[in-house]
Formats: sequence, C-alpha cells, structure tokens
Amino acid sequence: MENVNDILSLDSKAGTKQVKKGEILQKEGELSTSAFYVKKGLLRSYALDHKGKEHIFMFGSEGWIVADNVAPGEKGDLFIDALEDSIVIQISKNPTAPSDMLKILKRIGVLQKRIIMLMSAPAIDRYNHFLETYPDIIQRVPQKMIASYLGITPQALSTLRGEINKKK
Amino acid sequence: MENVNDILSLDSKAGTKQVKKGEILQKEGELSTSAFYVKKGLLRSYALDHKGKEHIFMFGSEGWIVADNVAPGEKGDLFIDALEDSIVIQISKNPTAPSDMLKILKRIGVLQKRIIMLMSAPAIDRYNHFLETYPDIIQRVPQKMIASYLGITPQALSTLRGEINKKK
Repeated sequence: MENVNDILSLDSKAGTKQVKKGEILQKEGELSTSAFYVKKGLLRSYALDHKGKEHIFMFGSEGWIVADNVAPGEKGDLFIDALEDSIVIQISKNPTAPSDMLKILKRIGVLQKRIIMLMSAPAIDRYNHFLETYPDIIQRVPQKMIASYLGITPQALSTLRGEINKKK
Repeated sequence: MENVNDILSLDSKAGTKQVKKGEILQKEGELSTSAFYVKKGLLRSYALDHKGKEHIFMFGSEGWIVADNVAPGEKGDLFIDALEDSIVIQISKNPTAPSDMLKILKRIGVLQKRIIMLMSAPAIDRYNHFLETYPDIIQRVPQKMIASYLGITPQALSTLRGEINKKK
C-alpha cells in the first residue's frame, strides 16, 4: 500500500473519477498520460496476445496505483479496466519530471515489457526483442545463456535460429 | 545506453574496479548495497532455481548499469558476475534517497521478483507469492483471472488448489 502523495504529486490536474465495472480506462496503443490511484474498488491491467488471449499484468485494489509503465506520452502496452465499480484518482504523468526520474521510469518500462513478453509472446518475438535490446551481446555469450535469458531450452533456440535463417 | 550520472550520483564512494571473467560481484542472499556501471566488458545477473538451474535476468555491456533491484540494504535475489574481464564502477545505493525515489525502486523490485518467478519458480510458489501480494483479491476476482496472472491454465490452478487443500 503506497501513499500516492509520495510518488506522483496530486496537483490541480488530478481528478476523482467514478468508474463502472467493466469500464476501460486505457487501451493498448493509446498515448499513456495517466496513472490511476484506487480509492475504492478494483482495477486491473492486462495485455492481449496475438490470439486475443488476456494476460493479467497486475491488480490494484484500495491504496494501489495502476499505470502503464511506459514513459509519459508513449503508446501504452496495456489495457486498464475496472473489475468492480470503483473510485479512482486520475493523475497526469509528468513529462517534465527530472531526467533521473524519467530514466528510472524507463527502466520500469523495460521490466514491464519483459514480463508481458514472458507471459504472452512467442519465443521468436522474445528473441527478436532480445536482439534489439542487446545488439552487441549475441556474439559475446554462449547460446545456452541466450536460451536462459529467453526462458527456453538451448535446443528450442537452435530450432528457432534455423527457422530464421531459412526465411532469409 | 544510460548515463550513470543521471541515475546514481558518482560520489566519493564510487570506485573503479577491475574484475576477472567469472568473478562474482554479488551473491543471492547477501545484502545488496551496490550497483555496477560497466565501463568495459560484460556482466550478467541471474537467479538460481531450487534445482540449481540458472535463469538470466539481464546482461550489461558497456554503458549499462547492472544491479539487484531490491531496496538498499535488503538481501538480494540475484547473482551478479562477469562474463568477460571487465572494468566496472561500483556505486553505493543510497539508503537515504528521497521517499518517492525509494518507493519507485521498490516497484522495480516487485517487477524483478515477478520476472524471476515467471522464469524459475514452480506454479505453487507463484500462487503463494500472489496470495502474499494480493491478500484481498482472491475473493474478488474469478479464478480464471488469477490463472491468467500466474501464467497457467484455470485447470492447472484448480489442480494446484486441490493439492494445497489436501495438505491442510
């Protein structure tokens, strides 16, 4: 249970909002500009995989803050909706926060992405994301470590690379 | 690639350190007091599961910061070692950082734990950790959502709960 005042300042832009069960507060792909402090009720955030299956990222009941942890103004990866009739305080993300704070938020965003991908992305997408994140690592570590990072067996990684090479 | 100065201030406590390939900078269970900025070389962080299998949490080459994302002074969940001969700047975590910064670090710690558990913990441990994190949620959401959060099928969750009840 966190005290909202310590994390995001409740300035004049913060507004109390009543939301009905089932109401969607944020959709994947929309610019993420707000976080939601739950005064009463229950929110959740979730990602949809390419088959349309839901993967729940987090729940947030009284006292929690639910947010898509992307940088202010970036497109969100998550849906946020209400599982019960709720009262939330909508807080604007601050795009002019100090640079060290924004970098830490960026790190949170990277971890969020990793969780979503571990839960919902096929191994090939995780592999491609690995190559984007660590373009210089692939030549420097044994394959079994890359497999360990991806959460797959070295055999599965070898099959995956074979398939990628065939497509080239 | 992040600029270390923006995230952790390089005060008099920061020291340059040469580490040999294979050298361990931090062990699981030790108090986590430092982060490591990689000037040259390659570090990694990883968790061991109960079978002794390694699960790589992250790599860190030149320009990256590798740290166990637990609060300053807490016991770490990760091992950090060098995959190549490296030069790192060891930076002390600041236990007197502002309260909002410490709370955000705590949030990063929660995400790190979730990633480690998704990669390496049996479903029953993930379920118990869910109950600790969200003691009030279990009565308020359908089972299939809890299964979705855990990354298992509703059938697997039902089996799990049956086994737990049998043990009681």
